[in-house]
This record gives sequence, C-alpha cells and structure tokens, in this order.
Amino acid sequence: MRLPENRADLQQRSINLALSVRGLSALQGAGLNLDQEMLDIAIPMKGRMIHDFAGNQTSQLYSVFGKTINSVDRALLNAKLLTAAEQFSNLKIFFNHALKTCDLDVPSATFLDKTTGQEVTDYADLIVGADGAYSTCRRQLMRKARINFAQEYIDHGYCELTIPARRGADGQPEYQMSPYHLHIWPRHTFMLIALPNPDKTFTCTLFMPYDQFEQLQTEAHLLSFFSQYFPNAIPLIGRDQLVKQYFTNEKGTLLSVKCSPYHYQDRLVIIGDAAHCMVPFYGQGMNCGFEDVEVLAGILDRHTALGAASNVGAALAEYSAVRHRDAVAICELAMRNYIEMRSSVSDWRYLLRKRIEDRLHHWFPRTVIPLYTMVSFTKIPYHLTIAQHDRQTRWLNRGMLLSATLALIGIYSALRRLK
Amino acid sequence: MRLPENRADLQQRSINLALSVRGLSALQGAGLNLDQEMLDIAIPMKGRMIHDFAGNQTSQLYSVFGKTINSVDRALLNAKLLTAAEQFSNLKIFFNHALKTCDLDVPSATFLDKTTGQEVTDYADLIVGADGAYSTCRRQLMRKARINFAQEYIDHGYCELTIPARRGADGQPEYQMSPYHLHIWPRHTFMLIALPNPDKTFTCTLFMPYDQFEQLQTEAHLLSFFSQYFPNAIPLIGRDQLVKQYFTNEKGTLLSVKCSPYHYQDRLVIIGDAAHCMVPFYGQGMNCGFEDVEVLAGILDRHTALGAASNVGAALAEYSAVRHRDAVAICELAMRNYIEMRSSVSDWRYLLRKRIEDRLHHWFPRTVIPLYTMVSFTKIPYHLTIAQHDRQTRWLNRGMLLSATLALIGIYSALRRLK
Repeated sequence: MRLPENRADLQQRSINLALSVRGLSALQGAGLNLDQEMLDIAIPMKGRMIHDFAGNQTSQLYSVFGKTINSVDRALLNAKLLTAAEQFSNLKIFFNHALKTCDLDVPSATFLDKTTGQEVTDYADLIVGADGAYSTCRRQLMRKARINFAQEYIDHGYCELTIPARRGADGQPEYQMSPYHLHIWPRHTFMLIALPNPDKTFTCTLFMPYDQFEQLQTEAHLLSFFSQYFPNAIPLIGRDQLVKQYFTNEKGTLLSVKCSPYHYQDRLVIIGDAAHCMVPFYGQGMNCGFEDVEVLAGILDRHTALGAASNVGAALAEYSAVRHRDAVAICELAMRNYIEMRSSVSDWRYLLRKRIEDRLHHWFPRTVIPLYTMVSFTKIPYHLTIAQHDRQTRWLNRGMLLSATLALIGIYSALRRLK
Repeated sequence: MRLPENRADLQQRSINLALSVRGLSALQGAGLNLDQEMLDIAIPMKGRMIHDFAGNQTSQLYSVFGKTINSVDRALLNAKLLTAAEQFSNLKIFFNHALKTCDLDVPSATFLDKTTGQEVTDYADLIVGADGAYSTCRRQLMRKARINFAQEYIDHGYCELTIPARRGADGQPEYQMSPYHLHIWPRHTFMLIALPNPDKTFTCTLFMPYDQFEQLQTEAHLLSFFSQYFPNAIPLIGRDQLVKQYFTNEKGTLLSVKCSPYHYQDRLVIIGDAAHCMVPFYGQGMNCGFEDVEVLAGILDRHTALGAASNVGAALAEYSAVRHRDAVAICELAMRNYIEMRSSVSDWRYLLRKRIEDRLHHWFPRTVIPLYTMVSFTKIPYHLTIAQHDRQTRWLNRGMLLSATLALIGIYSALRRLK
C-alpha cells in the first residue's frame, strides 16, 4: 500500500470524534459555555454494541452510572471552536497560511500565504505549536534540542464505509441501528466499528492488517469476506455501496508518535498530536489534546503568577516532564484497547472481570474504578490510571483465587460429609 | 548544553576508529588488498588497560588467542578508501556536493554544488544512501513509506582531550602509556578513555552525564574533579592543556537511531549510520556500516543472479528484514557496553566470569565464545551473539550453582567425618 504523494492527504480524518470528560473539562475552562454547546450537537453513546457472526447484538454499558461518551461531528466541532475564538478581541485568526519554518531563537514563524503565494514572517514571545502529527514545529524543535523521538506505524490500516439512514414510516430518515452505542464487530485479528452521525447515518471503519486489505482485490473476494465475517453489515451498508466505497476510499495508516521534551527554553512548546499521536482506539486523541491545553494553562498560570517572565521557561520544563508520562501512558493504552475492542470484548474472562469490577465500582465508586471509566469519565492523570488498574488486577486475581479456594474447601467438606 | 547552530557541526567525529573483523572482512571483499592496507596504518590494541584511582594499571586482554582491535586514524582511512575508489573506472566521485533532496519515484537526487552554488539533479536505477546519522535519504524515505523510527539521546555527553607524545631519550617522540591498549578510567557513572594515534599521542574522551559537565564551570572545579577521579591523567594531558581543551572543545551528544524498513521498492536503500546509529562504546559503528555493504552486496548478487531486474526490490526487502534485527542488536549491545566499560570492568563478579569464560573459550573455542569475541572477532550475526551470550550465561550460572552445591556437600561430608 503506497502512501499518497501529498502529506496533507495523509491526515485522513474520521468524520466523528468521541468527546469525553477530559475534553469537556478543557472546553469548560475555555468559557463561553463551550462544553454545553458541544454536548448539544453530540450523540451520547452509553456503551458498546457487540455484533456476533449471526448478527445478534449485545449491549455492554460503558458505565454503571450511565455515563456516556459523545459522538461529535468534526466539522461542526471545528466551526463551534472558531466561532468561540472570534469572541476574543486579542486573538487574530489567519486562514490558508501553511507554516514553512520557525526560528526558535527569535522566536519567529514563517508561513506561506496560500492565497497570495507570499511568505509572511511573524514574531512572538512564545510559539505554541499545535500543528498535528507531522508537525513542522516539532521538526524545528528536533533541530535545536536533544529530542528523544519515536514513531511507529502498526501493521494494520483502516478503511471508512458509510451506513446510510433508512426512511421511517413517516418518511423521515432514521437510524438503522441503536444510535446510543458504538457498534463493534470483533473478529479477533480485525474488526468493524460504527459511530452514529447526527444525520442518522453511521460512519463505519474497518480495521485490519495490511496483508488482509491487499488480499481483497476483487468484488467477489470482498463480498465473500463480508458474508463470512460481517453478514449483517452487508444490507446495512448496501451491497453496491460497500463495493464502491471499499475500492474508492483511501486506506488509512495508524501512527503512534512519542517525543520528549516538548519545549525549547521559553520559546516554543508543542501540544496535541504534534507532541503525541496515538492510534484511535481509546477515542482519547482529541481529549488528550484538549487536556494538554488545560494542563499547560494551569502550569503557566502558576509560574507566571510569581512574577518574572523568565518563569515561562521553568513552566514549560515542568509541563514537558509532567505531561510526557501521561502522553506515553495514553499512547500505550490506545494500543492495548485495539486488542480489547477487536478480541477481548467477546471473551468470557474479560466479561467476567467486567461484571465483577462494575459491581464493585457500583458499591465502592471511589475505591474500585474500571480502567475505561478512569480514562473516559475522570481526570485522573493517564499514567496513574495504569497504576491503579494494575493494582485492581492484582486484588481481583487474589479475590478470585480466594473464592476458588473457599469453593474447593466447601466441596471437600461436602464430600467428606457424604462419606 | 545547547546544540550548535549548524547541523554539520553536530557530526563531531572522534579522530580514531576501532577496526575489527567485520570491517576488515568487508574491506577484503572490496579487493585491492584494502584490509591489509588498513592494518598497515593501524595500531593493534590487544586489550583494555584499567586505571584505578591510584594510577595503577591492569591489563585485560580482549582475546585469549591474542586477537586485537585496530586503532585507525579516520582521515587516513578515508584517504585510503578514496584512493581505492579512484581505481574503479565505472565510479565517478564528486566533492562538495550536498544532497538537498531525492525523488524516490524517479529515482533522482538533487545536490547543491557548493563550489558553484548551483543545484544539480542526477538520475539512477537505485540510490544507496550512506549519508550518516542525520540522513537526508532517510528523511525522504520517511515521507514515502511507513517507516518505524526512533532516535534517543542518552543523558551523557562527551569531550575530547589529547595526551601529547613525550620526547624519548633519543629525542624522538614516544607514547606516554602502552599503545597496545585501550585505556579506561572506569568511575561507575562516568569514565575517561584513551586510544593511541600513530603520532604517539592519545585521544582521550571523557564520557559523563550532562549535569556533571555543567557543574564543571571553573578551572578550580575542573582540576579538583580530575585530582579526585583521574589524578594520573593530569600530568599525562598536562594541567594547562587540560584546562584549555576542556573549556574550548565542543561537548558532543550521544545518539542512537533505529529505523525499519531500510528500503523503498527497488529505488532506495539506506546503509550505515543513515540506517542505524549507535553510541560508540562497542567500537562497532564503522564495522557494522562496512558489514552492511558486505551483506547487501551478497543479497543483491544472489537475487540478481536469477535474472530479472525486478528482483532488486525483493533483494532490498530481504536486506531490510535480515539487517534490521542485527542493527537493533548492536545498538543495544553498544548501550550495554557503556555500563561494562565505565563500571563492570572493575567489578569482581565481572572479572570472575571473564576468567572462567576465557578459560572455557580456550578449551572449547567453538562452543564457548565470550560476547566481546563474538562481536569483535567473528562475523556471527549480531542478533545471534546476544542469544548465544544469554545461553552461555545460563550455563555458567548453572555451573557455578553446581560447583557451590558440590562444595557444600564436600564441607558437609568433611564435617560428618570430623564427628
């Protein structure tokens, strides 16, 4: 599978994003009632809907307390954010300006104005680079400082497909499946998922190893593959549309990027995908990026409240140190969640643990918190969620061992009594 | 510690390189008696010379069979290689041409001719990129293909110092220490090393954590540090020269780079530091780069012998797969060897194992081979050296456990007889 020529094309983006507590908290911090505005345009998803081979659907709730993650249209979200930004008189917004380079010692940034074809240079006290997975700011940072950096493509790619709305009895469009779920067809080494859109359609994504994509070269191959693994998805998508979309739509790559530190002196700091780019399986990419802003603003406030401007450098150093361990943690969790989504969700051991843990969480909501809840419904720093999850795993295993032992003793006593 | 402005300055290079079996084998393969030519200008080092705090020197041989690694002057080696290259009539050599970019689909490469200031583009069937740690070819490769990439700066830097020759009784310059050793002052978290040059001088390198470099800000600090840790090095380098060189010479960074795959279709392959860059502690950077050429040439020969030109793509794919695991292994071994050099070499457990292993190697030269010997004096693929070393460690541990048990039984029997 060749990558497209143009880097911009690489940044294929799914249509909908999952907004959860961390993202909402940062939006709330930005004011203007932004969090509520986003919830108004979002579709709340209360759990996963697992589709088995026969097309049977089983709901798995995300939270025993009914908490939801929120499917938001990317374009709508962007529009709302821009409208909000326009309210700030100290903010100037430029469109069609591509960052060409930045000089971190000035610091200054040079852009190509795509409308005029002219280069424009501007100066700043501090550059905050939020220029995405293929960040130009990060590239400049790597030329100036000792940056540890790793990028990793996983051996799986993805392809987007659409489930259209159907006409209801009243002639209005309606959803073909429950809109309050994230739908998953887990098939162990690959999976199909679907997220609801406000226009009653679903955006499906097929995640699969590249070799498997490469094997599906003809219409017959594709349809026999879908008949075998996702039979109920064929009528949902529509046979003709499935074939058309599968062979037309670009196959996307899945990239994970880590780097450290995120800053250069008091001149530049990178945030969001520019600093850490994760596979999409935890729905935390945007949430983590928004949380970056909240964490950075908090640290900057604290350091600049002390007075001297030179504290910005110390603030950025603290931000790099604090945020890196959390970014590494969520990148790792996102990788792990691919296995959970495509395989564990239909494994009895996973389901048993989920049932026990959900029950304990219901009884002791602050003591036992399932990992998914910690990541999506709390602001516990990501790296602590892993530590707490590991602790809970140890206790649960001990508990189950104890239960098994007690059960054996019970059986033994019963058998003795029978003698 | 700020990095220098100019990338070219980053590529500070030590004056001498250690040439061992893998490098020599590739040179032999190139013909023109190149391996022998290099040995003629090299100084053979038969072992490490460990300097303790009191200045006592202890020799540790590299090989029970007297094998040596060879200290070669980088400039001389380069000159010899160029002279050899000039003998090939099908080879054109250009100087002062800096690679600006390459188009992998043509493939073509565009250079800046530094003499004329003009850009020059040339076309090729296959581009072999050997353009070093900050490779432009690798950057282009990363834009075209899904390349996993990681760069890591260790928290230690280095500074070079020179031990001058002394005037002998006959007025001729002579070495101040044994020229047949690689000298090491191991100080656990840091170290000083020295390699002999043909002009009877030694090039010393101080490897140390950056914070420690930053603490040595004044002449008094520096001299008290050297008096405490390397007292016998002060008269060797000379007090004034030590101060002058330490504060003048650039502090170098230590970078490790891994990436995979190394090729793009049948158009480009990267080798040497462009593909894998390691910390210098195993003296294998150049040897591994030369071995790349031998391995690549062998695979290309095998694939193109079959006929069709399209086999080049298959050859490069095989090269990427085969060579990557070895490159990862030697990068890892180079990291580990820093700890061995700065710390283990003065640890009794290390010395005990070395003694036992050397003895076994002497008795069973093909069955038990110390790691250092496998890496420096054989062509066993790097990744297999780690596997064999781990196997030997298990057997040695079992052997020592058995010896200890037998000894205990012996003591117990003796005690019983005493009763």
